[in-house]
Amino acid sequence: MSRIAYFGPEGTFTEQAARELARGAELIPVETIPNAFSVVRKGEADAACVPVENSVEGAVPATLDGLAEQEPLVAVAEALLPVHFSVLTRPGITDAGDIRTVASHPHALAQVRLWAETHLPNARPVATSSTAAAAVAVRAGEFDAAVTAPVAVRHYPLPVLATEVADVRDARTRFLLVRRPDHPLPAPTGADRTSIVAAAANRTGALAELLTELAGRGINLTRLDARPAKGNFGEYRFFIDFEGHVAEPRIGDALAALRRRCRNVRFLGSHPRADGARATIEPFAGNDDFVDAAEWVEAVRRGEQA
Amino acid sequence: MSRIAYFGPEGTFTEQAARELARGAELIPVETIPNAFSVVRKGEADAACVPVENSVEGAVPATLDGLAEQEPLVAVAEALLPVHFSVLTRPGITDAGDIRTVASHPHALAQVRLWAETHLPNARPVATSSTAAAAVAVRAGEFDAAVTAPVAVRHYPLPVLATEVADVRDARTRFLLVRRPDHPLPAPTGADRTSIVAAAANRTGALAELLTELAGRGINLTRLDARPAKGNFGEYRFFIDFEGHVAEPRIGDALAALRRRCRNVRFLGSHPRADGARATIEPFAGNDDFVDAAEWVEAVRRGEQA
Repeated sequence: MSRIAYFGPEGTFTEQAARELARGAELIPVETIPNAFSVVRKGEADAACVPVENSVEGAVPATLDGLAEQEPLVAVAEALLPVHFSVLTRPGITDAGDIRTVASHPHALAQVRLWAETHLPNARPVATSSTAAAAVAVRAGEFDAAVTAPVAVRHYPLPVLATEVADVRDARTRFLLVRRPDHPLPAPTGADRTSIVAAAANRTGALAELLTELAGRGINLTRLDARPAKGNFGEYRFFIDFEGHVAEPRIGDALAALRRRCRNVRFLGSHPRADGARATIEPFAGNDDFVDAAEWVEAVRRGEQA
Repeated sequence: MSRIAYFGPEGTFTEQAARELARGAELIPVETIPNAFSVVRKGEADAACVPVENSVEGAVPATLDGLAEQEPLVAVAEALLPVHFSVLTRPGITDAGDIRTVASHPHALAQVRLWAETHLPNARPVATSSTAAAAVAVRAGEFDAAVTAPVAVRHYPLPVLATEVADVRDARTRFLLVRRPDHPLPAPTGADRTSIVAAAANRTGALAELLTELAGRGINLTRLDARPAKGNFGEYRFFIDFEGHVAEPRIGDALAALRRRCRNVRFLGSHPRADGARATIEPFAGNDDFVDAAEWVEAVRRGEQA
């Protein structure tokens, strides 16, 4: 059985994603995202499950920075979870009007603010370090209600006041399963995502040139994030996700061009997309087109064609 | 005297930035970033001061989204503050070893974690909704210490255990002063920043084309952020900052090209850079070059040159 570290504590959305991505594995909650990566790098776990982006809050900085620095890790799978919350209460509360405090991580509180104004009219929001920490505090009698991931009630048995609570109906979080690069990658499926991080030279046009290498090969971006490198506003790293798999000729050709333009590029993985969306292939840029073109050049070199 | 709304409460880094950006103004703390924008849109304040990016945490999503949606606002000034904290304690504490709880916003706690491990060895971190809320809670006797902005002690008089505390020495936050667009913009200085947001068409190469318009005119990007539009992973808005001022011919030419390629582009302001860095001008792309080239075309059209 494999061992999967996840950004804990127990009872968070990340645990839920880890259960989906690694059925039957032993799950190990780890206190921070950097530590989850660290136990994988040291070989103490086989893989780590971490959040990478939320449709409301955006990218998760600790995940991006943790993948760009230290020993390489690669993403081999992803999960997409709807962000809706359960509201757990202190035992003995019979009327929502009696709830005076509602605790959760500040991001979760922000995502249920309108719901709470209507359904918990007398409750003051209180910030905790995680959604699960709010459940712990409610069990300890510190607060009256906790806004948590649905999985929390497995670990922190408390009365459930409401489920599927969310102000934004379609909010989702994407999670990655990452491991060391010394295993075969998952096979291409036609609906894959490839991720890289590149420290583009700090000169005019450097990013435009990288993106033009992808665009010129008909490769569709799915995400681009700029993060300050070494905490310095002057230098940025670009995290680029695009359709396709490194095993495909068209993607290999593009990655070689990016590497040529930018020595400081790191492969962060190729894996099936959780939404199953198949890659857009431009008429001139299918894998067959790349193979045919390379074969034509070889034939020209052999004097067989012109 | 002008009225400046800022993302409060009193005693945060944003208050400190507002004091720097609007000396002598009446400062009005507002509970959230969207509300700070809203009071300016309604004319209840002349401008709003909000954080826009932090060199460790990255962009501030609420600021970017708030500028992209609803009635336009433009940034007219920026401030860059070093992120170092003061540690305030409950009166009567004489030994740091007696501090059992240290409260702050989770981002602030993350940025002083190593310091706290050494200097507050017995303290458990506790999350609050802002750095100032931690000071309020310490004054109320709820916790033993608060990690706050230096300005907090003006509002919440408490013993100061330490100042200039930060694990990352050069962390900085950039703040904007934004107002309605119905006033003259600040004059160009040669060291300016222009910001736009563009909803690029969801097709291969759309972003590369926009960036190539800037690169082809020798205009250097200073920041690029992708944010999901309407909380949807499938659609992104691109927030692009670059060197220069809309009043310059080279920048006007570039903005017109972006507008031609993308109807859904919004101008978010031109203002002097807080770091005073002057724009890089490529040999073929100075303002004189743009003016000379336009004059040459006019002369050709008049039959005076060829």
